[in-house]
Order: sequence, then C-alpha cells, then structure tokens
Amino acid sequence: MSERGELTHVDAAGAARMVDVSGKEITSRVAVASGVLRTTAEVVELLRRDGLPKGDALATARIAGIMGAKRTPDLVPLCHPIALSGVRLDLALGEAEVVITATVRTTDRTGVEMEALTAVAVAGLTLHDMVKAVDPAAVLDAVRVDRKEGGKTGLWTRPQP
Amino acid sequence: MSERGELTHVDAAGAARMVDVSGKEITSRVAVASGVLRTTAEVVELLRRDGLPKGDALATARIAGIMGAKRTPDLVPLCHPIALSGVRLDLALGEAEVVITATVRTTDRTGVEMEALTAVAVAGLTLHDMVKAVDPAAVLDAVRVDRKEGGKTGLWTRPQP
Amino acid sequence: MSERGELTHVDAAGAARMVDVSGKEITSRVAVASGVLRTTAEVVELLRRDGLPKGDALATARIAGIMGAKRTPDLVPLCHPIALSGVRLDLALGEAEVVITATVRTTDRTGVEMEALTAVAVAGLTLHDMVKAVDPAAVLDAVRVDRKEGGKTGLWTRPQP
Amino acid sequence: MSERGELTHVDAAGAARMVDVSGKEITSRVAVASGVLRTTAEVVELLRRDGLPKGDALATARIAGIMGAKRTPDLVPLCHPIALSGVRLDLALGEAEVVITATVRTTDRTGVEMEALTAVAVAGLTLHDMVKAVDPAAVLDAVRVDRKEGGKTGLWTRPQP
Amino acid sequence: MSERGELTHVDAAGAARMVDVSGKEITSRVAVASGVLRTTAEVVELLRRDGLPKGDALATARIAGIMGAKRTPDLVPLCHPIALSGVRLDLALGEAEVVITATVRTTDRTGVEMEALTAVAVAGLTLHDMVKAVDPAAVLDAVRVDRKEGGKTGLWTRPQP
Amino acid sequence: MSERGELTHVDAAGAARMVDVSGKEITSRVAVASGVLRTTAEVVELLRRDGLPKGDALATARIAGIMGAKRTPDLVPLCHPIALSGVRLDLALGEAEVVITATVRTTDRTGVEMEALTAVAVAGLTLHDMVKAVDPAAVLDAVRVDRKEGGKTGLWTRPQP
Repeated sequence: MSERGELTHVDAAGAARMVDVSGKEITSRVAVASGVLRTTAEVVELLRRDGLPKGDALATARIAGIMGAKRTPDLVPLCHPIALSGVRLDLALGEAEVVITATVRTTDRTGVEMEALTAVAVAGLTLHDMVKAVDPAAVLDAVRVDRKEGGKTGLWTRPQP
Repeated sequence: MSERGELTHVDAAGAARMVDVSGKEITSRVAVASGVLRTTAEVVELLRRDGLPKGDALATARIAGIMGAKRTPDLVPLCHPIALSGVRLDLALGEAEVVITATVRTTDRTGVEMEALTAVAVAGLTLHDMVKAVDPAAVLDAVRVDRKEGGKTGLWTRPQP
Repeated sequence: MSERGELTHVDAAGAARMVDVSGKEITSRVAVASGVLRTTAEVVELLRRDGLPKGDALATARIAGIMGAKRTPDLVPLCHPIALSGVRLDLALGEAEVVITATVRTTDRTGVEMEALTAVAVAGLTLHDMVKAVDPAAVLDAVRVDRKEGGKTGLWTRPQP
Repeated sequence: MSERGELTHVDAAGAARMVDVSGKEITSRVAVASGVLRTTAEVVELLRRDGLPKGDALATARIAGIMGAKRTPDLVPLCHPIALSGVRLDLALGEAEVVITATVRTTDRTGVEMEALTAVAVAGLTLHDMVKAVDPAAVLDAVRVDRKEGGKTGLWTRPQP
Repeated sequence: MSERGELTHVDAAGAARMVDVSGKEITSRVAVASGVLRTTAEVVELLRRDGLPKGDALATARIAGIMGAKRTPDLVPLCHPIALSGVRLDLALGEAEVVITATVRTTDRTGVEMEALTAVAVAGLTLHDMVKAVDPAAVLDAVRVDRKEGGKTGLWTRPQP
Repeated sequence: MSERGELTHVDAAGAARMVDVSGKEITSRVAVASGVLRTTAEVVELLRRDGLPKGDALATARIAGIMGAKRTPDLVPLCHPIALSGVRLDLALGEAEVVITATVRTTDRTGVEMEALTAVAVAGLTLHDMVKAVDPAAVLDAVRVDRKEGGKTGLWTRPQP
C-alpha cells in the first residue's frame, strides 16, 4: 500500500506515468482474483449441458481469460509488460451464477493482480457474450483481488467483510 | 433473445463458432452498459483531487475504456469484428464508488452490447490499477447492459429489479 | 486469377503495396480451407480422451483458429482488414492425424481465403503446442484453400489431383 | 517429452491452463522449424524476378515471419509470453516450391519451438497471399520442428524418416 | 475544419470521446501524408546498397508502414476503426535523407489522414531502427498531411508555405 | 555505433533479421527522445483551455504515448520484445507548438531508443488527430533521440548542432 496516501500512477503535477520499477526486486509472485457472473438457473443449466460432451461453452471462457491475462499491458495503460509464468482460470457453476477464479504467477519486478483481474474480467465478458441471447440481463459482479503474495509487501489476503 | 432457449455460440454438437450474421440487416444500433468500482471515500477524494488540474487519473480510465471497446473482437473469442461509429465513457464519482457508463454506436449487422460491456470492464480495470496501491480491496461490481436499441429485437431496457 | 501472370502485391517497380480494392463490389463471399496435423495414434487417443468431459484440448484449437481468423490483417502484411460475418472451425480426429477445416464468410470487397487459411494455420499451431510434449515430431501438412465463392471470379474449387 | 504420456496443457479434470514454469531454469535456447510452400514453377519464377531489384515479394514474407514469431503468445492460447533474443527467417526457392526455415533464440524459462513454428506458418501464409492470384492451389506443407536445444531436455533433432 | 473553433474529440466538459460519425456519408476517400528521415549521405548509400539485391532494408520500412496504417485505431485512442481499401508507401532516397510518402484509400464514414500519417510515422521509426547503429542522430521530420479528398469537406491540399 | 559501417539488421546477403542479442549484458538502460508538433497559437490555446478542468486533450496524448511505447515490437519489425520498467511522457505547450519528450527505462539486453521514439511518435499522432479539425496543416517535426545511457556503448548525448 502506498505510504503517502497518493495515487502512484500520476506524478506531483497530475500527469499519468508508468512508474519506474527498476529498483524493485525480481521475486516469485502470485495473485488470485475472482468474480461472479449472475445469470439465471436456466442459463447455468445450458452451460452445464453444453459443457458436455465438447465443453466449448466453458472452455471458451477459460481460454479467453487466459489469453486476456496476456493482453493486460495492452489494455491497462499504465501496467508494465511482464513475463507470466503460469495462469489458470477456474469456473464453478452455482445455482444461478458462475464463479470465476484466476491464479496468475510471475517471477518479475511487479505483482500480477492486474493480470489476474483482467483474466477474470475477460472470462466474465466472454460468458456474458455466450449467454446474452438467452439472458440479456446477466451481470458481472464482485471482480476483486482475493490474495497476493511475493514482492516487498508480502502476503495480502482480502479482509473478511 | 434466442427463441430456442439455446446457446447460439455453440453448434448442435457443442462446438464453439462465430455465428453467421450475413443475413442480418445493417442498421443503426446503440448499447449502453454500466458498472461500479466500489472503493473508499479516501480514494474517491484522491481521484477527485488528481482530477485537477490535469485530470489524468480519470482521463486514463476514460481513454482505456474507449480503446478497450475497439479491442472487443480480440478479447471475446466469438465476437464479430465490426465498425464502431462512436464511443463515450462517463465516470461519475460517488461517495465511495465510481460509476462507469459506456455508450457505443455502430451501423452494422450485430449489436454492440459486448463493446459497451468491454469498455466498462477495461475502464474498471484501469481504475483498479490506479487505486490498488491505496485500496487493494476495491471491487468492480454490477457490469451489465442497461439498454440496447436497433436490429431485429429493437429496444431492450433493463427490467427494474 | 491474375490475368497478367504477375504478382499483384508488388507494383511495376517491385515495391510491396496493399492493392486498391475500392472498385470491387461488395458481395457475399465464402472460403473453405483445410490442413492436417500428422501425429501419432497415441496422441490422437489423448486428444480424444481429453476431449472428454471438458474438451478443452480440442476447444482450445477451435477457439484459437476462430480468433486467428480475426487477426489475419495483423499477421499477413498486405491483407485488407475486413468484416467477417461468420467463422467455423472443424476438427476431425483420424487414426494418427487431426483434419482441420475452416469456413469463413464475409460480405465485403475481398475474398476470405487468407482468413480461412490463417484459421487453419493457427488451429494447427495450437494443436502442435498441445501435443509437443508427447510428440515433438508432429507435422502440420496440406494447408490449402479447398473452395471459394463470391466476387468477380465466382466459384473456385480445388482441382482433383 | 512428457513422462506421464499426458497432455500437459490440460489439468486432471481436462481444463486448459498455462502451465506454471516458475520452477524451470533460465537457459539459452534455440529452435529451428521449417515448412514448404508448394506452388508452380511459374510462380517461383515470378518470386525470383520480383525478388529483383527491390525484393519486396520475398522480403514481405521474411518480415511477416519475424513479426509473427513475436505474436506467438497472442495467437497460441497457452503459450507463455517470453523475450526473444533473435529471429531469422530464410527462404530458399526450389523448382516449384519455397522452403521456409526459421531460427529463434531466447534466454528464458521455456523453449521457442512454438515461436519458430509460428514464424514459418506466418511466412507461409504471406507467400500464399502473394501468389494466390496466380496460383490459388498453392499448399503449405511440412510445418515442423527440425531441432531444438537448451533447457532440461537438451538437444532434440528430428529423427530421420 | 471545425466551424466552432473547438477540439471535437473532447466534449463540453472536456472529456475525451470517440465522436459519433453515424450521420456521415460513406464515400470514397483518399489521404496522402509524407515525412522525411534526415540522416547522413553515408547511411543513404548503405540503404541504397542494401536495397540491392534483396532490398530488405527499404522493404522492411515499406511493409512496416503499410501494417502500421492498419494498426491506427489501436494506437490513436479516439480514431474510428475503419476498413482500408488500399495503402501504398513510397520511399525516395535523397542525398542525406529518405522521403516517405503514404497514400491511403477507404470507402467509409471518416477520412484516412490519421492512417496515412501513422503509415509515415511507423515507416520512419523503422528506418530510424535500421540506421541507428550507424547514425544515432537521425531525425524524423515534417510528418504531415499533403492532401485529402472525399467526404463533406471535399478536397484539401496543403497550402504552399 | 556499428564498427563495420553496415546496417546490422540485414545480413551479408541483404536479408532482414532480428539480430541475436543473447550475448549482450542485462543492464539498466534509459533513453530520452523528443519531437515537436507545430500547429497554430489558436490550437495551443485550445489545448491549454481543454487541459482544464479535465485535461483529456493532453492526457489522451500522454497515455497514447505510454501505450505506444509498449507496442514498439508490434510496430517496428526487427525490434526485440523487451520488458519496460518505466515510461514517462511530457508535453510542454509553447507558443504555436507542443514539445513532446519521452523517457523510457528498462533492465534488459537492448537499448530503449526505439521505445522512446515510438512513444513520441504516437503521442504526436494523437495530438495530430485531436487538432486536425481545427488545424489540418499541423506538422510533427524533429522526432529524435536526445540521450541514451547503459549497455556497452554507455552514455550518448545528441551532439549540439
């Protein structure tokens, strides 16, 4: 957390910048983020069914999320381009929702929260796209970091509400 | 809405496909989507302050959202690449949240809900990125279509809850 | 086919150019291309098995192929960026090979052979990637146009060998 | 080669993932891949002639291949984004074919076979694009890894048929 | 030219937007832009020589410029993604400079000045890259629109100085 | 500077290649580049005014420049993809011009001149785009490296004219 209570991505004059991280250590880092697509029980049933036998409905979202993680620096203007050493994207079907969880690993100078959040958001958008003909009112909710590890700040876990 | 109660993006055998829209009419279409970044009153105050005099904090999110709309077919696997004729991205600062609204227009064969949702998600991710040093627990919520117009299905507005 | 027996993508002096197609008609066009990943019976068995229940192995290749079609103008320097109205990517498991077929549709000024070929090549590369730990000697063969329709030249089908 | 005779890109449940390579060593790695565009003697003659004096026909394919290597992680869903330290793309004109060879180097945690194969495929697609007006029946054949070096598995060369 | 003497890309409140062009007519449009890479006579001699026999030095810049034109909406935040119907990029070697000229055509709702300027800039950057080991002091100068045609404003030619 | 007085990006036969840098040291490197958008006093006044209160006009160019730096290897064919550890983009309003300065940092095997030049060029193109309705005759001038540090060649500063 910023010690100065300031937005680090803008300088003293308010101009946007990509913060210089040359001084940061290269360490192993992990971030886990999650989100929820809220839809209807009918849609979850369709996803479950289309998940068999070929599974492309859920696979499309998983793959889009993984590819999305790699596009993070292209999408988020002030993110550093970094090497990713692993990405996994889990989808859990609930009663009327799909819970999306992304785990991203790197060995680099910055954390990978943004990559994990982007994976979740892109997987969520892809689910939105696949269900929109049946449920145009679906909502992507609760896109957030759950846990991150590594780097100067060490382990952070989301405080219980 | 799909009349057959089926996911249109997978065929009878469950394989993913980009649906053939050649038969659809080229009409003027608009979609409005929104979302909310829930953070702290302190962060909103920083965004408001950094919004002056140069405003790069909020401008960065606005521009990322507009650019994100253009990247939709690169991110969402089964989306058609289409021409966009206009995009606007509004950010409204609340007490402890930022409300993001995207309006996307096209004159093409498919609707632009996905482009509007992607603009909102990418603007939300960018805000996440800018506030994460101060508020690592921020949450992107309620990413959804509010209204769409044009095409065969005509006007759709989100049902009141 | 070029009437002059010349490469149309280079001018009289030999310089590369993106040919001006403004004078061409906007018509409905389709192209079908195919290719074959030759591997081992063991790998085909793994693909078949991993194709169940979630099917991500084959789904990954299908989705990569569809997304690849959309990236054609980014990859092939002199290709025109065009709207695609539909893409499908079929994978058929043989004894020791996977046959890849892509069908791409547009309503635009140029044909979509390159998009269909790119879909096949990217799906083939993705299969290569997934099987390489088990079969580093896999080969992508016979990437070619099978049929195209629409535009001034009308229907073309691959001559029987 | 995978010791377990399993596809490493899908987990036990069949879900696609980008494998975690954090534990792998950073070593110098090289991969050589090749492929062949089979066309007609007439087209090879045109490529040879257009190769002079400005050479854009062949140069376009060489450059597309080099740029394609850099786009590998954008195209192949489960590929890791890695630094490339060198790429070369050779084109050899035969009687009625063009032999494409790519050599890619890195100093990173994963091999660069996929980058070399992608370079070959994209150069091949670009040749396809340039000759298609004269020879719509051209075929890209034999896209394969010839040799790779570095990393835990050390040197691998393609077995003689 | 804007009749109101205002920047059209920001709204009354100063927020950036992609201007709505749905009301604009689809017409044939052309833009010509140019620029100059100022370097040394020695470098021009190297470019001329390397231009023979394979010509990759100049071809690389030509192709990069053409591909750059296609990337314009990815680079320039408020540009509309549009179809390009033709791009050509000419390089003329002077005594100690290279004159770059790009001609871009479309049949769409907006002009293509930005695409022509981007083609020139990317070709110029590519020349910079190729000569920088020999002439680190090279300068890209005079990147500007020379002429545009089509659309509501009709023909515009650069006023003589 | 090349000791051999040769273009390093083409081999002895004139073929383009991405030079092998595996042997180069990983060191901290910085490059500063600049350029000038020449326009009218009226436009500078509009930029200054639109710079307040939300500042999107100038912010859009700053952000485009920073994002452009990250796209360098996608645009400049023979550039190595490298990690960037920091980017800043400064805009100074003069009487009838905007001076653009980019500072890019890395800790990698190659210098970042091209990334700094690309940031300047993309910021300049974005300014061009924003002022073109008011001043179609604006010119981007003097895009050049001012200073670079790090690597085998050490410090280089632009010679005074």
